Amino acid sequence: MFERDHIREMQGYTPGLQPSGAVIKLNTNESPFAPGPRVMAALDAIRPTELQRYPDPSATVFRQAAARLHGLDPNQVVATNGGDELLRLAVSTFVDPGRAIGVVTPSYGVYSVLAALHPSPLSEAPMTEDWALPEEAATRWNDDGAQLALLTNPHAPSGALASAETIEQLVAAFQGVLVLDEAYVDFVDPALQHDVTALIGRCPNLLILRTMSKGYALAGLRLGYGLGDARLVEPIQAKTRDSYNVDVIAQRLGVAALEDRDHASLAWLHVRQERARVADELARIGVGVLPSQANFLLVCPPGSSSAQDLYAGLVEKGVFVRWFDAPRLRDKLRVTIGARQENDAFLAALRDVVGSTERRA
Amino acid sequence: MFERDHIREMQGYTPGLQPSGAVIKLNTNESPFAPGPRVMAALDAIRPTELQRYPDPSATVFRQAAARLHGLDPNQVVATNGGDELLRLAVSTFVDPGRAIGVVTPSYGVYSVLAALHPSPLSEAPMTEDWALPEEAATRWNDDGAQLALLTNPHAPSGALASAETIEQLVAAFQGVLVLDEAYVDFVDPALQHDVTALIGRCPNLLILRTMSKGYALAGLRLGYGLGDARLVEPIQAKTRDSYNVDVIAQRLGVAALEDRDHASLAWLHVRQERARVADELARIGVGVLPSQANFLLVCPPGSSSAQDLYAGLVEKGVFVRWFDAPRLRDKLRVTIGARQENDAFLAALRDVVGSTERRA
Repeated sequence: MFERDHIREMQGYTPGLQPSGAVIKLNTNESPFAPGPRVMAALDAIRPTELQRYPDPSATVFRQAAARLHGLDPNQVVATNGGDELLRLAVSTFVDPGRAIGVVTPSYGVYSVLAALHPSPLSEAPMTEDWALPEEAATRWNDDGAQLALLTNPHAPSGALASAETIEQLVAAFQGVLVLDEAYVDFVDPALQHDVTALIGRCPNLLILRTMSKGYALAGLRLGYGLGDARLVEPIQAKTRDSYNVDVIAQRLGVAALEDRDHASLAWLHVRQERARVADELARIGVGVLPSQANFLLVCPPGSSSAQDLYAGLVEKGVFVRWFDAPRLRDKLRVTIGARQENDAFLAALRDVVGSTERRA
Repeated sequence: MFERDHIREMQGYTPGLQPSGAVIKLNTNESPFAPGPRVMAALDAIRPTELQRYPDPSATVFRQAAARLHGLDPNQVVATNGGDELLRLAVSTFVDPGRAIGVVTPSYGVYSVLAALHPSPLSEAPMTEDWALPEEAATRWNDDGAQLALLTNPHAPSGALASAETIEQLVAAFQGVLVLDEAYVDFVDPALQHDVTALIGRCPNLLILRTMSKGYALAGLRLGYGLGDARLVEPIQAKTRDSYNVDVIAQRLGVAALEDRDHASLAWLHVRQERARVADELARIGVGVLPSQANFLLVCPPGSSSAQDLYAGLVEKGVFVRWFDAPRLRDKLRVTIGARQENDAFLAALRDVVGSTERRA
């Protein structure tokens, strides 16, 4: 009615279901474990007068904690209301409406919604057949005049990891700002010694996104942060974000979580072990799985099963995974790695559903 | 560097100071009282698993509680990360960049920053000499092609209240969307029976902003909401806001606060009583005060005192109020109504500072 024409005509983002009750929830890549006692102690310590007052608009203590963790300066850190806010802020800060935003396809659905809202066209570089970053991505984005590119690494929803060297080449070749969305980086095998933060000193156009939602089990809290050259961070920190974008509880619990990585890393270890076990089990029952460095697996059901039917069959058994109605994904399911008994429940339900589908076929 | 040209050239919003330590803080219009036991019980009841999972992206229970309170339908309510987020969303949802945004002058500093960010020119209608809404506001905004207007009522920083009739005439005459920012409406004298929510049924272009920051003492939590015609709310609810813009704790505590208005209304009564008392005391020492229906007073120091010097003198005594370097405001101070002893500390400090300034003069 009164909304802008392009907004009237577009669709919003559809988040994964948040079903209530006793279900197996492997659809939104949350942590298999709850936050630890130090985070909950920080919550207990919140006093009524702290809610009464505005929070520190600069989130100083949290930014200091994140800076310490990554060996950076606090002015290279900006705190946001979840990682999604940093994505939106990167668009509004760096992209003139009508100028392109680079992505690979497929990618996180929020990217195309943010582009449609701005509005900006997408410059799309398809992931290779075997889910590697397309070599021509930077060229494509530059040719399309993209001022910003949004890239999830490990990639979602495949779980494939591009090395720091690959990222450095990409960001060096790209003329705009690359937001490297490391939502899932905590689940990468430490043996790979994967670390992109060291690039910040030499890549002035690299903005790294981190979230507390997945690796730190704080999806309910809405807290993420960006890391980058101080000149890249400054306009977001000082101008484009809402002044009080991160509440006092998120600031406080975020610090506690960053300072108790020992607790979080138990979940990371669990995810890596279970990821390997679930992948083995799936292979054993003839279900294809892509190698993943994230806390999910992209699962390719056997030939005669429709992924959408499998999805519906799993929901009927109370197991929620994610099915995307999108190219290259319609024949697959994305399954979050959960606690051991959740993964077992998924495997058992999948065996049942695949079995009955195949019997019908 | 990489930021858009107009962002590089503009200034961000400067929020009021959030000084720590034992100071008298009357500079950001917070509640004089902390949130009540039911809100704190809701905080205690937050379980680790609730932080682990994403919040309800639709904030259903909170929107139902707000709808019940105002006699509306939940689809006439949208929950936001503080009132500031609703202001930003109104701009991005209803205004094409380059089209004007209507305001009165002076007004809340965030309005002009949001316009500069979008970017959009301001269509400015000056408040009258005696701080009433300008009669020509709608005509001015329409002539300038404004798609949106942002208006605080009670007005900030004067505290003047426009009646519901005046607002209805304004919104009927305005061709764009009027965001009526009722951040301070909880402090209006109930004897006035002021209620604008009844206009929603007949004004499809009226979006009312409410915040939990001031009237409900939850500034630290970041929670506000919008009320309006379902067709006005829908594009914000379904498309332009971030999917998980309000965290689980804010949703839960917000419900508890709305359901315990008895506690909040003690603060509202206190503010009204203290507002009258402080105004009387100020008049007694020769300091001009505008009549206010908000939780602050706009104070006009006596002739020979500079407001900026008074501000600095008060800070030296540990009393923080607000001085705005803007037309019509440079000779005034905005003082939040605090707890009784805070107000007394302000009055004592002001007497001292005015006295010493006058002795110097």
